[in-house]
Amino acid sequence: LKIFALNSNRPLAEKIAKTVGVPLGKTSVDRFSDGEIRINIEESIRGDNIFIIQSTSAPVNDNLMELLIMVDALRRASAGTINVVIPYYGYARQDRKARSREPITAKLVANMIQKDGVDRVVTLDLHAAQIQGFFDIPVDHLMGAPLLADHFIKEGFGSDDVVVSPDHGGVSRARALAEFLKAPIAIIDKRRPRANVAEIMNIIGDVAGKRCLMIDDMIDTAGTITLGAQALIDAGAKEVYACCTHPVLSGPAIERIRKSPIKQLVVTDTIQLPADKQIDKIQQVSVGPLIGDAI
Amino acid sequence: LKIFALNSNRPLAEKIAKTVGVPLGKTSVDRFSDGEIRINIEESIRGDNIFIIQSTSAPVNDNLMELLIMVDALRRASAGTINVVIPYYGYARQDRKARSREPITAKLVANMIQKDGVDRVVTLDLHAAQIQGFFDIPVDHLMGAPLLADHFIKEGFGSDDVVVSPDHGGVSRARALAEFLKAPIAIIDKRRPRANVAEIMNIIGDVAGKRCLMIDDMIDTAGTITLGAQALIDAGAKEVYACCTHPVLSGPAIERIRKSPIKQLVVTDTIQLPADKQIDKIQQVSVGPLIGDAI
Ligand SMILES: Nc1ncnc2c1ncn2[C@@H]1O[C@H](COP(=O)(O)O)[C@@H](O)[C@H]1O
Ligand SMILES: Nc1ncnc2c1ncn2[C@@H]1O[C@H](COP(=O)(O)O)[C@@H](O)[C@H]1O
Repeated sequence: LKIFALNSNRPLAEKIAKTVGVPLGKTSVDRFSDGEIRINIEESIRGDNIFIIQSTSAPVNDNLMELLIMVDALRRASAGTINVVIPYYGYARQDRKARSREPITAKLVANMIQKDGVDRVVTLDLHAAQIQGFFDIPVDHLMGAPLLADHFIKEGFGSDDVVVSPDHGGVSRARALAEFLKAPIAIIDKRRPRANVAEIMNIIGDVAGKRCLMIDDMIDTAGTITLGAQALIDAGAKEVYACCTHPVLSGPAIERIRKSPIKQLVVTDTIQLPADKQIDKIQQVSVGPLIGDAI
Repeated sequence: LKIFALNSNRPLAEKIAKTVGVPLGKTSVDRFSDGEIRINIEESIRGDNIFIIQSTSAPVNDNLMELLIMVDALRRASAGTINVVIPYYGYARQDRKARSREPITAKLVANMIQKDGVDRVVTLDLHAAQIQGFFDIPVDHLMGAPLLADHFIKEGFGSDDVVVSPDHGGVSRARALAEFLKAPIAIIDKRRPRANVAEIMNIIGDVAGKRCLMIDDMIDTAGTITLGAQALIDAGAKEVYACCTHPVLSGPAIERIRKSPIKQLVVTDTIQLPADKQIDKIQQVSVGPLIGDAI
């Protein structure tokens, strides 16, 4: 068993390797002068079972191509099995045609990975679990919720608190977290009375005087989670915490979180946070041991 | 027949569309907040024969993914045939394993394009013609040499001049250009006597007192072409001109060309030149009519 890190998230790869108890494989992944990816695998891998750790987070196209080129090189070097660990699976929101003439990029990516000769995929909290079905190879689909639950249980969260889903799509995720905490759930019910009119947020469930814990699979521009937090406060919630597996945090996200009533946001390290996104309000828990145990 | 431009080279796409006599198809190709590619095809294409114009020049991974996602969207929208015009085919230099455990990215890219449902590929001056064999679909392989020859014939080049190949790999390309000009050829013969010793450049052929015209398929960092130009001057050449199909021009290229004895470099527009690469010494001729006639 050999573990190779590409460039998206080396700190996580190191944690995974530590859990497994092997050093990271020797490789260099850099760029030619014109920006094309150059990969050098610097040790023999013939017949070995290989795990590549690479999130397809931003820059998504570069990270995806690094993964595909690495797999190509490993396959041509007669690797035994090629297993790819994609802690954050990019393009997961383009998983269906919501309008005419849209691509289904999540399937395109699945095809590319599979046809490249990958034997197995390990990933976490896919935006839609249906993406597993885009592959004809085994997909291990791990969940961040138990890890996030552990964190909040240690912080004293439990049956007095309320777990809140920021929208209807996330109810089963909220339910899973609530079961760990033995807490009730609430749902934020967004509705736009007419086009070009601001959304109305109704809270389904009882949050008055309660500490609320919102959960989502990913936080991207943080609009949903920060507006939801304000709606909870407006409905009388005492405090609002939030958590998610994938801290995409693009565009205005950090500024919105900073200004929001969210007391603390707990995220995992499926996506490496650059220094300017490591603010006090955001705490990271590692999925390294979880992935390490799964491989 | 509908022609769609993606983001790598819209000016060329417009020239191609003009030659063909159709307007460019309506589409928007931009980015979501997190950098993922968003494509909107804004007109019906059901049953149509589609041509997509996209060079996989820098940023190569982004341009390649735009192409693949566009093809995915078109195929799912029931396009009649999907033809992709890739004036510059990126990753063409990674076309074989020169060392152990190297990828063959040019083949990986061919697989991705083909398995995405493309019916036909049109490209120009592949770095290695063997890349045509990486595809099982028709590949039209156009040549820039006649176009470059036309340009230099108009400038008065002919049998008194010498066409020079900057290395052994490029001799047949130089021969093709020389035939148009009815000129003799010469070859720059590079040889490294020992490791870590500067290369020696011998000129095979007669260049003393002559006007020389170097030709290559692409100029990337411009090391080969500018050192070659100096070697020609040192061997008594009167003047040195250069030409190539693909102006990659990365890293130190522009500075090297500026400082070199090359009087003028003529390139095509398979790759769009950003403003800072449009210097006086470099002149562009368009492959728009050539491609337009081929589709
Ligand atoms: N990277 C992205 N950022 C924001 N929205 C996206 C992204 N990719 C896809 N979408 C859109 O998000 C919607 C799907 O999100 P959801 O309803 O949460 O599954 C679709 O309308 C997509 O067009
Ligand atoms: N984008 C690139 N820039 C510079 N060198 C490259 C690039 N891609 C591949 N190569 C290397 O170029 C060599 C092949 O070039 P050539 O001998 O001209 O066909 C191989 O050793 C490759 O590793």
